[in-house]
Amino acid sequence: MAGSSFGDRFKITTFGESHGVSVGVIVDGVTPGVELDEAYIQVQMDRRKPGQSAVTTPRKEYDTIRIVSGMFEGLTTGTPLCILLDNKDMRPSAYDGMDETFRPGHADYTYLKKYGIRDHRGSGRASGRETAARVAGGAVARKLLEGRGVEIVAYTKEIGGIVCRTYQPETIEKNNVRACDPEAAVWMEDYIKTLASKGDSVGGIVECRISGAMAGLGEPVFDKLDADLAKAMLSIGAVKGIEFGAGFSSAGMLGSEHNDGMNADGFTSNHAGGILGGISTGADIVFRVAVKPTSSISVPQQTVTVDGEEREIRTEGRHDPCICPRIVPVIEAMACLVLEDHYKRQAALHG
Amino acid sequence: MAGSSFGDRFKITTFGESHGVSVGVIVDGVTPGVELDEAYIQVQMDRRKPGQSAVTTPRKEYDTIRIVSGMFEGLTTGTPLCILLDNKDMRPSAYDGMDETFRPGHADYTYLKKYGIRDHRGSGRASGRETAARVAGGAVARKLLEGRGVEIVAYTKEIGGIVCRTYQPETIEKNNVRACDPEAAVWMEDYIKTLASKGDSVGGIVECRISGAMAGLGEPVFDKLDADLAKAMLSIGAVKGIEFGAGFSSAGMLGSEHNDGMNADGFTSNHAGGILGGISTGADIVFRVAVKPTSSISVPQQTVTVDGEEREIRTEGRHDPCICPRIVPVIEAMACLVLEDHYKRQAALHG
Amino acid sequence: MAGSSFGDRFKITTFGESHGVSVGVIVDGVTPGVELDEAYIQVQMDRRKPGQSAVTTPRKEYDTIRIVSGMFEGLTTGTPLCILLDNKDMRPSAYDGMDETFRPGHADYTYLKKYGIRDHRGSGRASGRETAARVAGGAVARKLLEGRGVEIVAYTKEIGGIVCRTYQPETIEKNNVRACDPEAAVWMEDYIKTLASKGDSVGGIVECRISGAMAGLGEPVFDKLDADLAKAMLSIGAVKGIEFGAGFSSAGMLGSEHNDGMNADGFTSNHAGGILGGISTGADIVFRVAVKPTSSISVPQQTVTVDGEEREIRTEGRHDPCICPRIVPVIEAMACLVLEDHYKRQAALHG
Amino acid sequence: MAGSSFGDRFKITTFGESHGVSVGVIVDGVTPGVELDEAYIQVQMDRRKPGQSAVTTPRKEYDTIRIVSGMFEGLTTGTPLCILLDNKDMRPSAYDGMDETFRPGHADYTYLKKYGIRDHRGSGRASGRETAARVAGGAVARKLLEGRGVEIVAYTKEIGGIVCRTYQPETIEKNNVRACDPEAAVWMEDYIKTLASKGDSVGGIVECRISGAMAGLGEPVFDKLDADLAKAMLSIGAVKGIEFGAGFSSAGMLGSEHNDGMNADGFTSNHAGGILGGISTGADIVFRVAVKPTSSISVPQQTVTVDGEEREIRTEGRHDPCICPRIVPVIEAMACLVLEDHYKRQAALHG
Repeated sequence: MAGSSFGDRFKITTFGESHGVSVGVIVDGVTPGVELDEAYIQVQMDRRKPGQSAVTTPRKEYDTIRIVSGMFEGLTTGTPLCILLDNKDMRPSAYDGMDETFRPGHADYTYLKKYGIRDHRGSGRASGRETAARVAGGAVARKLLEGRGVEIVAYTKEIGGIVCRTYQPETIEKNNVRACDPEAAVWMEDYIKTLASKGDSVGGIVECRISGAMAGLGEPVFDKLDADLAKAMLSIGAVKGIEFGAGFSSAGMLGSEHNDGMNADGFTSNHAGGILGGISTGADIVFRVAVKPTSSISVPQQTVTVDGEEREIRTEGRHDPCICPRIVPVIEAMACLVLEDHYKRQAALHG
Repeated sequence: MAGSSFGDRFKITTFGESHGVSVGVIVDGVTPGVELDEAYIQVQMDRRKPGQSAVTTPRKEYDTIRIVSGMFEGLTTGTPLCILLDNKDMRPSAYDGMDETFRPGHADYTYLKKYGIRDHRGSGRASGRETAARVAGGAVARKLLEGRGVEIVAYTKEIGGIVCRTYQPETIEKNNVRACDPEAAVWMEDYIKTLASKGDSVGGIVECRISGAMAGLGEPVFDKLDADLAKAMLSIGAVKGIEFGAGFSSAGMLGSEHNDGMNADGFTSNHAGGILGGISTGADIVFRVAVKPTSSISVPQQTVTVDGEEREIRTEGRHDPCICPRIVPVIEAMACLVLEDHYKRQAALHG
Repeated sequence: MAGSSFGDRFKITTFGESHGVSVGVIVDGVTPGVELDEAYIQVQMDRRKPGQSAVTTPRKEYDTIRIVSGMFEGLTTGTPLCILLDNKDMRPSAYDGMDETFRPGHADYTYLKKYGIRDHRGSGRASGRETAARVAGGAVARKLLEGRGVEIVAYTKEIGGIVCRTYQPETIEKNNVRACDPEAAVWMEDYIKTLASKGDSVGGIVECRISGAMAGLGEPVFDKLDADLAKAMLSIGAVKGIEFGAGFSSAGMLGSEHNDGMNADGFTSNHAGGILGGISTGADIVFRVAVKPTSSISVPQQTVTVDGEEREIRTEGRHDPCICPRIVPVIEAMACLVLEDHYKRQAALHG
Repeated sequence: MAGSSFGDRFKITTFGESHGVSVGVIVDGVTPGVELDEAYIQVQMDRRKPGQSAVTTPRKEYDTIRIVSGMFEGLTTGTPLCILLDNKDMRPSAYDGMDETFRPGHADYTYLKKYGIRDHRGSGRASGRETAARVAGGAVARKLLEGRGVEIVAYTKEIGGIVCRTYQPETIEKNNVRACDPEAAVWMEDYIKTLASKGDSVGGIVECRISGAMAGLGEPVFDKLDADLAKAMLSIGAVKGIEFGAGFSSAGMLGSEHNDGMNADGFTSNHAGGILGGISTGADIVFRVAVKPTSSISVPQQTVTVDGEEREIRTEGRHDPCICPRIVPVIEAMACLVLEDHYKRQAALHG
């Protein structure tokens, strides 16, 4: 594969640049005969779209999706769904001069090295806009997983050193940072606003919890469930790390502490994060991803031009001071894609 | 793919169980006309094999490899290499009773849930023995990368809270824990021995550094270089997390701190870990993986039988009290596979 | 893969139904920095479109393509091209009653058996309309192959027993049946018109000739160049067979006749059709495909309803009495895709 | 993939050269819990092996297979099967001088062009010996298909102009050419012996019939069942063409003749060869493959050396004067692999 497709039996292919005509996604391998409509997908699109609150970019994107294939009379037909999003709010003038200067933290330099050519308008293909297509594809997977009783929820766990002390799932969609602790959410939002006023940004940690997944998902030895989830998450631009269950704290643990015992009711702890030997245990699958600070800041930074001349740069435009709130639905979407794919692979194994 | 293959243009397929007749690997997509011999591969096998030191399992495996295809007169032919390792030191009696009790931390329960059947002798396919095949395949990739000027080195960074304070690459292969700090290595080895005497185990962190890789490797948007490395690492049984560059500490950083500036000499820092937008920058690629404590311990643990009856279990047999020293060459092997694969993919893009 | 993608390093994914909103194609793995425009692709689209002549369906489709991603300032960027065709001339009333009766020769019955649901408007996904997307994708491959000096030409060789006696390439695009012999073309066109007036259809044979391809293309042992071409051709709905070089006549030949000798100038014959051991020899690659008569005819036929009741059916609507003239550009497109893919795979092998 | 793997959910990877240490196959995606043993596979190996009769090569190969992974206590475990065949009857002296002269009809020239290096002993990877690995893998698929009620039978239909007039399946394994007509078999055998005495060879046509397959197998649009079968067959070295159902004779048929009608009992004819729109209809799947004359003949032929000097060559060694009898089990094996793969893909679609 050339890199724009993800999944094996349930597969998405995305296309489009931030300032091209459209972005979109092909979803192939969809179970036929399932009720689906644009409104269902739009709910997820709206969770990702810019301009939702005081702590996201005020930039307006047009995230209204259209399904142009794969449906008939309200049901999936088993043929590929194509979901389109047209780009409308393009302000190319905001990107003047970006053709010759590498923005720190962005993929400007690496795209030019890779391709020898680069669409510099708003990061082109490397833009976060591409994740809109993933959210659309993930929504289709989510629909199928609902029928299986699987629920996937992600939320902000930490921003800039401010950590959620409680897990209150009902609060997540009610605060602007999608934190699982309403008190921490207040501090996080304040901190982000302060940084935004200075033109700076901040990173965070997002946790994802998958409930109701059957035991037995995941393919030894390379396509382990955690390996595929790790690839899915690291394929999101701002993600710099992932850990499952006890994760990096495992480094300081003894085997007698880390091993999850079993009794007649199941596992007595979940340091494994719901996955043993790459296969789901039936317990909640829990992982955390490290999210870097948004690269686009208006604080002056040192960089060079394509000709190697040193420059100072301020990335103008309208950007998110912290991407955590908007990355939450992207993380969920990618997790949905991995889970649905592995359900279908398990069906094939025994089919 | 059914899960036993890894890579796209440079691809390995492994097979074999710990107590079957053989384990092995098929390496497909090998550049033709390259000098290679069994001795070159054996060097890496010997770094992974059990019984190397006082802190690894005294179990003897026979890791002598044989190349049975794909070579002619000392050169690769471009056709698939098959590399075989026969199993010899099988003591099935050591696994008596394991068919009916789930060992905590192992894949016993999940394999049974997945397949409805399980080879319980020494973990079967889920055994660390499978990684011998990866190391053999990785050695072929390493050979090709040498010709490209790419060097890949992994080393223990932390074990049970004991952290390396210095990075002295020349010391890595000279201490029993493959730490990059000789002082820390002494403390680590002592700590492991103490735990071993109690039948317990401990986790750690291994860091990997890739030098000399060209800028431009990695495929947007899903097959990012870091995404593929993450999948590679999480596909190793004991790995519970990965982070690139600043990794999880990015959560507490500002954009103005995290962004790597550039001057006429290149990047002025490397918080990105050598990868921007999923594509290599030409700087060192640096990542760390979290390694859980070995699951096999003789400390008594609570578990259940396949019939759901509660039991106390002590995992007997000969096991590593800390897997870090032996996981180092496995991590390097997987990194070699990813790098060589992406070099070939980059050649195809422009080819 | 779920079936809607073709190719390995140069890959297309098609989507869309004949009477949905749009059909289209994603082309991934495109060499960056290549000049391309919509007009170049449109030339191929116009060769495939209905209504070109007296012997094709008078149905009007709107085959005007739009490139919505993967281009910047007239050059390919290396990111996926999405090419869209909107559907406009939908006359769903023409398909009244088709939801309950299986049309002979069509995929109505098999789609229902496979999916349990079927979009019956104009064959849905099984419609020849899907091949428009292939032609668009193939045009991108053709552009890259031009730079390599590869030329791919297909033409009608036989229709309903009328066989081309000469090979005059300059005549192909000048007659309505795309035959390579202008005299045979006259007879073919007359025959088709006669059949059309009776509501019947007829089959034929199309030959394809690839000139200028380098020796060494094709991957042993499964992804042989002829194996991939065979898959490509049989994936076209109306194709029922393929043969390379001497093909089926090889059955009656001796080894001493069939083997192509060599002298200082190269091969002295080409019974192999330009491929030996699955790898191109550098000689012209020549193959022929068998094209069945168009299934849609207004002659009464015996069939059943979805409930198993026997019915007589006449497939109304506007259809091609012989699909050969319009399948020629589809065959060329698929051949272009296979060739470009194998050029890139060869680059990866040595890259 | 690099070319040595075949299949999607049920996948084989072969390795090995005719005169290397071993050839073999990895079978991944096997349904767990199925009874299987080496004797079952050996039956198929023995049908392919040389030296079976007066009309096959007297060369002795050692085709005794060993399963070295993926089995436990007589059952498949769901992990990859590795099946090995060691090479023993190597007579490298028979290949003296072959390093510098291209044998007509063989892949000598193309391998050298592709790889820049070539294992010239007995065709190396391009040898028919590689098909032994396919037969072993196909036998595993056959076992699974038996449980589904699918039967796959191939047989010689024509050799050198001598055509079977009757279809008597019980006679196939009772004559030396595996013809379906015992009278034709006598003529065929005589003809082959005459040619063999002159050092020449002859081609033929093999037909394959698949009974009992469910309707609904095959993936639109590229992974059609006939497209995958075509690729499978053309991946066999000596095959030069394939046709389904009416095949090339469709070129002369009218739509009103070719379309298969339906009545309450099913299809009233089978010109489609059991596949419509790339999906199985439930009727017998019938296809024919064109088999070229064996390239190795002792009749003098004109060729060149690697340095371009003209030479006369007689291919010495022990070869089959007609490969049809021994290609029959290879064709069946490949058909088994395609069918089982598509059963699993269909399970995934609805799973």
